[in-house]
Amino acid sequence: MTMTSAAALRREPLPLTAVTIDDEFWAPRRELIRTRTLRHQEGQLRRPGQQFDALSLTWRPGDPDEPHIFWESDVAKWIEAASYCLATTDDPELDRAVDEAIELLAGAQQDDGYLNVYFTVVKPGERFTDLRDAHELYCAGHLIEAGVAHFEATGKTRLLDIVRRYADLIDTVFSPDGPRAGGYCGHQEIELALVRLYRATGERRYLDLGRRFIDWRGEQPYYFETELRHRGTPGYFGTRLPRKPGDLRRFREYNQSHLPAADQAEAVGHSVRAMYMYSAMTDLAGEYDDDRLLQAVRRLWADVTGKKLYITGGLGSDPSIEGFGPAYDLPDAHGYAETCAAIGLVQWARRMSNLTGDGHYVDTLERALYNGVLSGASADGTRYFYGNPLAGDGTVTRQEWFDCACCPPNLARLLSELGRYVYAQGPGEAVVNLYVAGTARFAFAGGEVTLRQDTAYPREGRLAITVTHADDGAEFALAVRIPGWSRQPAVTVNGEPVHRPDLRDGYCTLSRRWRAGDVVEIDLGMEVRRTWAHPAVAATAGKVALERGPIVFCLEGVDHDCAVHSLVLARDAPVHVVPDERTGVVTLSAEATADDGTDGSLYGDRPPARRGVTMTAVPYFSWANRGLTDMTVWIRDGRE
Amino acid sequence: MTMTSAAALRREPLPLTAVTIDDEFWAPRRELIRTRTLRHQEGQLRRPGQQFDALSLTWRPGDPDEPHIFWESDVAKWIEAASYCLATTDDPELDRAVDEAIELLAGAQQDDGYLNVYFTVVKPGERFTDLRDAHELYCAGHLIEAGVAHFEATGKTRLLDIVRRYADLIDTVFSPDGPRAGGYCGHQEIELALVRLYRATGERRYLDLGRRFIDWRGEQPYYFETELRHRGTPGYFGTRLPRKPGDLRRFREYNQSHLPAADQAEAVGHSVRAMYMYSAMTDLAGEYDDDRLLQAVRRLWADVTGKKLYITGGLGSDPSIEGFGPAYDLPDAHGYAETCAAIGLVQWARRMSNLTGDGHYVDTLERALYNGVLSGASADGTRYFYGNPLAGDGTVTRQEWFDCACCPPNLARLLSELGRYVYAQGPGEAVVNLYVAGTARFAFAGGEVTLRQDTAYPREGRLAITVTHADDGAEFALAVRIPGWSRQPAVTVNGEPVHRPDLRDGYCTLSRRWRAGDVVEIDLGMEVRRTWAHPAVAATAGKVALERGPIVFCLEGVDHDCAVHSLVLARDAPVHVVPDERTGVVTLSAEATADDGTDGSLYGDRPPARRGVTMTAVPYFSWANRGLTDMTVWIRDGRE
Repeated sequence: MTMTSAAALRREPLPLTAVTIDDEFWAPRRELIRTRTLRHQEGQLRRPGQQFDALSLTWRPGDPDEPHIFWESDVAKWIEAASYCLATTDDPELDRAVDEAIELLAGAQQDDGYLNVYFTVVKPGERFTDLRDAHELYCAGHLIEAGVAHFEATGKTRLLDIVRRYADLIDTVFSPDGPRAGGYCGHQEIELALVRLYRATGERRYLDLGRRFIDWRGEQPYYFETELRHRGTPGYFGTRLPRKPGDLRRFREYNQSHLPAADQAEAVGHSVRAMYMYSAMTDLAGEYDDDRLLQAVRRLWADVTGKKLYITGGLGSDPSIEGFGPAYDLPDAHGYAETCAAIGLVQWARRMSNLTGDGHYVDTLERALYNGVLSGASADGTRYFYGNPLAGDGTVTRQEWFDCACCPPNLARLLSELGRYVYAQGPGEAVVNLYVAGTARFAFAGGEVTLRQDTAYPREGRLAITVTHADDGAEFALAVRIPGWSRQPAVTVNGEPVHRPDLRDGYCTLSRRWRAGDVVEIDLGMEVRRTWAHPAVAATAGKVALERGPIVFCLEGVDHDCAVHSLVLARDAPVHVVPDERTGVVTLSAEATADDGTDGSLYGDRPPARRGVTMTAVPYFSWANRGLTDMTVWIRDGRE
Repeated sequence: MTMTSAAALRREPLPLTAVTIDDEFWAPRRELIRTRTLRHQEGQLRRPGQQFDALSLTWRPGDPDEPHIFWESDVAKWIEAASYCLATTDDPELDRAVDEAIELLAGAQQDDGYLNVYFTVVKPGERFTDLRDAHELYCAGHLIEAGVAHFEATGKTRLLDIVRRYADLIDTVFSPDGPRAGGYCGHQEIELALVRLYRATGERRYLDLGRRFIDWRGEQPYYFETELRHRGTPGYFGTRLPRKPGDLRRFREYNQSHLPAADQAEAVGHSVRAMYMYSAMTDLAGEYDDDRLLQAVRRLWADVTGKKLYITGGLGSDPSIEGFGPAYDLPDAHGYAETCAAIGLVQWARRMSNLTGDGHYVDTLERALYNGVLSGASADGTRYFYGNPLAGDGTVTRQEWFDCACCPPNLARLLSELGRYVYAQGPGEAVVNLYVAGTARFAFAGGEVTLRQDTAYPREGRLAITVTHADDGAEFALAVRIPGWSRQPAVTVNGEPVHRPDLRDGYCTLSRRWRAGDVVEIDLGMEVRRTWAHPAVAATAGKVALERGPIVFCLEGVDHDCAVHSLVLARDAPVHVVPDERTGVVTLSAEATADDGTDGSLYGDRPPARRGVTMTAVPYFSWANRGLTDMTVWIRDGRE
């Protein structure tokens, strides 16, 4: 894969309307999103004095319920997730509710295209004066994504037109010689949104605007410091300019504006901001065929996945900034691993994979999706984790969704949009990235192809891909990702083994003239794996984790009569797979040992006695659904 | 020890003037306090617009440098520590500086006895309206302690008279039918101060006032909630009344006002507040011969030392409240273990020991003193730790003392007052609690006795106690504490072995008619010990700590070519003692193994290789004096 041809080889996700998902794992969760989560979210938005009411612009100083700076993004994320559902599911009630919300947005839009309640009724005259903190462009970005999503799902342009007018205004304000030239947002988001707007409309100036935001970031003089000095008042969150060098460095790193984007090499600061920015950089690297940006995101990817990634795909070990800690600093109980950051990683990984054609990026995507993302929601979809620790002492529990403002909407968006992660299409290539039962329709120049995927993944590692329709002349390469943990995948085409499959860049690529009825079967193998972390990581020293397929496992106290940190799994102890109805995948079982009670004193001169116990491991995503319980992903690794 | 006779058997510390300390370990540190720390602290107080200036009461609204609510306590703690120095050391300059400060305090005292700059010039008319947050009685308590200390050290009554007038006012305001009846302070301190004032003056009403403060605490309706509602405005720190039950519980527990003191059984909330309160409760249990209070402090002691104590004597695993976490929750890198909390434990332990005559309390005192307290200061006495973690990743460093407002003054007070911890006197008993070379003068009814202690403790475990003077008829019991880790102490009197020494309640008690020249020699034995924690503690599972005598050891990265968390110490690996000039005690050395590098990936399917390394352990108190370094107290316990 030469870098200069990256853009030419770029793959694209399929449109949502071209994908169906009818599996046993994701489909029920997606239905829960549509029928429960989005309804709850709508209820939140409709509460008196809240987001929908605020769009009426009738609030006046002194009234209760001062509108929040985030409210447009709440509405936008709901519309976006709802749109993804509407792309594939008939739901007239939801459709109407979305149209209603769009009308409210239309009513709140100013004549010049501006759309932001806070800076219209609370602080008029202060537009774009606190880019660092006030989330103005952040909200605009989410509105733009909603407009694009709604258009692509329903064909309606009402919201798309609204956000285009807003984007046009922003383009003027942030033109190279405009009044806010050099400025960018303190919470990255609009950059990737503008790429989507460009791709949906074909208007290049939106792409160029996104590019400018990335290019200006990190240039000196630092925009947020100039802005702060110029304004003379603290920022929206009380921000003042730090004086000590260390504090100033952290001030800049928090929103990744410490260096020009193309020069960045280490993931620092707030994790979600970083993920959205790296996603945009990846998009732009492809759109502009920009080597420097591509090298930057490769470096950043290596830093994240090589030194800062939890085994669950979680990111962010420092709760105080909801962001990255130092390399190899991955505390298990006291880290953060925000659900939204894992979702951001999924979004970035898809872009990296589609840009480079390398399936190993999807391995990481999958690691996050099936573990650190999914653990963010309770089994019944009504409670959420902000942070996803790798160990818990029995006091952590998910919160009712309305306490957790960002995770439900982000989970809703991701799961509703899942079809765009399962497949991709390149020039003459049908790509299967994730193993999810359903169908996919590829429109090649030579004709259409429809594939049917059948699998019980992640419970089993076997999949069957059937070509259910292939127009004449549909010669294409079928590229099926083979995960790194699959050592010797067994591949057959129409029952015939493929003895030396083409396994490059993380894919099994089969090129032929395909016919309807052709079946490719792949057995990935799915043995239980023991996994160890790099010795530089303190939290995992002397410990081992259990994985099977994409699933990372953990121990829960509720399955044991001792604290989970007491358990030791001997290196050679066999680990058995047990089908599990509760989680829909499997649990693991092994004979282990546990520290036994002592004389009760806190410190003493005798090591604890040991006894044999049966150890049960469950999928990490399923933890904390059976009441309060201690938990650990990393298990003491022993030899006795 | 029957409970009803506790008061009768109570021991008392010796006056500071009766003790000299000339050892190699503490004397240099005490000299550093007097010549450096107290001078620095004085410089802080003298800065323009700061504490001393504020006492002139010339500040007006609009002026810079608004006086802080804590400033009286800063001045008071400095005076107190200085007084302890003046008790045993001639220092005319310091003496003058203290007198000068006392005159400033005199000048700030109001006609009715009130003494608090903030509520005199910043918020006049708001006295005693925010007992929970504004630290008014806390400052008064420290002033009282300073007045008592100054009087006992110098015989001068100037400050004592000032604080008596203030205490009289407080007694009126908080009389049982006074305007603030039922109220108490949000930061316990005045309770123990009033006990000292009573003991110094003989005025019982001060004791009764302290008793009332303890008795009112935790009664319903909860005073701080009534106060908040009545005032209608948030507290000094923005405090509002929480609504959720969990938050309300934590609101009350923070300052241990959730239950009546005598009913409390678990250590919760802010650690330093707790320590000051439990100290006062112990004092009051003795003064009132109060069984219920005594049982309460015994329960609390059992909870703290049985479930919430770090092996270093540190307390407080929850940084968010600078206080106690759940039982057995003792995270090593992310805990807190505030230096001031360990100091508070030392203060409480002395009271428990003197009240009950049980030396095991002094074992805990010693554990804190030689580890979690001492680690609070750098070797040169100029930098301080707020928190004292049991593991560090190489980024923690002590701060210049002037950034850390509470630790230097508290360390200064403790070390300057050390003489009151080394010895105690009971009816017919001379008690040696700590092994510190120097002299002690006991005034018994029958005459005076002077002892000379010689020892190189904590470097060695041998001590010699010589009766250097004994008035005729001086028949007394010499009770020397024998620590719990000393299995078979060898005791001789005048060279003759004592074959079956009386070893009850943690003391070796020798009763005879003593003569000048009599020498008691005790060899405590001081082998290296391996220590394991209760299996309920997650942070220490599979780990071991090394101790020798009172010293807890740790590993520092600077002594190894690998991360300290990589090291494994086999159960049967011999550990050697190495004399060490740098720390003045010893280091330990053993052959261990370490995880070796891998292929560099963050997660992989192979355990790390192992190699042999020489492991060096240093005293915990001495860590972080050789540049940034990773560190761990708890070492991976292995069998290879």
